[in-house]
Amino acid sequence: MGKRVALVLAGCGVFDGSEIHEASAALVHLSRAGAEVKIFAPNTEQRDVVNHLKGSPTEEKRNVLVESARLARGNIQDLAELKAAEFDAVIFPGGFGVAKNLCSWAVDGKNCTVNEHVNSTLQAFHSAKKPIGLCCISPVLAAKVFPGCEVTVGQDKNVDGRFPDAETASAIAELGCKHICKNVNESHVDKANKIVTTCAFMCKAPLHEIFDGIGTMVQEVLKLA
Amino acid sequence: MGKRVALVLAGCGVFDGSEIHEASAALVHLSRAGAEVKIFAPNTEQRDVVNHLKGSPTEEKRNVLVESARLARGNIQDLAELKAAEFDAVIFPGGFGVAKNLCSWAVDGKNCTVNEHVNSTLQAFHSAKKPIGLCCISPVLAAKVFPGCEVTVGQDKNVDGRFPDAETASAIAELGCKHICKNVNESHVDKANKIVTTCAFMCKAPLHEIFDGIGTMVQEVLKLA
Repeated sequence: MGKRVALVLAGCGVFDGSEIHEASAALVHLSRAGAEVKIFAPNTEQRDVVNHLKGSPTEEKRNVLVESARLARGNIQDLAELKAAEFDAVIFPGGFGVAKNLCSWAVDGKNCTVNEHVNSTLQAFHSAKKPIGLCCISPVLAAKVFPGCEVTVGQDKNVDGRFPDAETASAIAELGCKHICKNVNESHVDKANKIVTTCAFMCKAPLHEIFDGIGTMVQEVLKLA
Repeated sequence: MGKRVALVLAGCGVFDGSEIHEASAALVHLSRAGAEVKIFAPNTEQRDVVNHLKGSPTEEKRNVLVESARLARGNIQDLAELKAAEFDAVIFPGGFGVAKNLCSWAVDGKNCTVNEHVNSTLQAFHSAKKPIGLCCISPVLAAKVFPGCEVTVGQDKNVDGRFPDAETASAIAELGCKHICKNVNESHVDKANKIVTTCAFMCKAPLHEIFDGIGTMVQEVLKLA
């Protein structure tokens, strides 16, 4: 029987939701590993709706759960219904939606608040010593909820112009966490906290390298599960 | 220098746009092969907007190009601007959006009309003897535009309950084309027409098998390019 993994989405589209290719990559790797996956998202309004062609916000209103259902092909549940006891691990893909809809990092940085169901989900898996996998900007959720933990969002300097959001690493350090520098094809495992992170699109890299990096995260999560 | 490949999208979400995981899989395989990819979509209103949580249409209006930009991370162009001379191949992922926004197959079946820019794109690559890759329901575009061609949409019977849309194969035959039965991990290559097809989500299969099947399609397209 495969490991039971919950995947938590934040919408559908890099600028206001989950990063689509990160979510899809996680699902491909989980499928290959024979995991039994259920997908969740909070049933709340998106912080904003971004026209991804223009890169600017619109007047539209969209719901995080409804838009996440596009990635889940309709097979998704309200995050409020997630019971950690029914799973061996939880994974959060990245995308600005994580910093807009799962917490308020996009506007409040390290002083952000975390959605109550995201917070309770993270706490439940952590206290049950079940692994938590996060990629891209999602590691800030762990940094906010578990002070002292170790995570990576890539490099802490804009090495070769590939890490334009390197200051995120400093913000993580200011939260009392340890930022570990890693390349896009690597994950960091915080063994004490069972938190596995990889930088994904925090690095300007070809898509297949991001895909492979997420593969290492999924594998490490499943090993710990 | 990598092969230059145009990828044509139809929105973002299986029920009213491009199937997200098929589009992402094609992009991962193209990235790994070192292809230079540009992404296009028609600048038209979607036929409908489907609430993917409920599976039912809403009153919303969305634009195919704007929604496709979610999959393209903003890096996308109007299909009207695609010049076949600048590319070595073109690929169409699937999803109901192909049958709703790129042609009218969803309502008209084999009597469908094809979007003018989709039609001219297909004609331009075909007449230049450049390969065309299609997956899932997209092969109906080739069947409609190139009578006599060979394509697969999987099996022509609902084998083991895995091919619930098997009657699509009959409709393709009625258009004067030859349907070739293939499994989800295989592609069919029509060498005369340089058309490569794989069934993807027309088969109820684990996501990684669909991912791998799309990989075979991408590889065959690049070999012909």
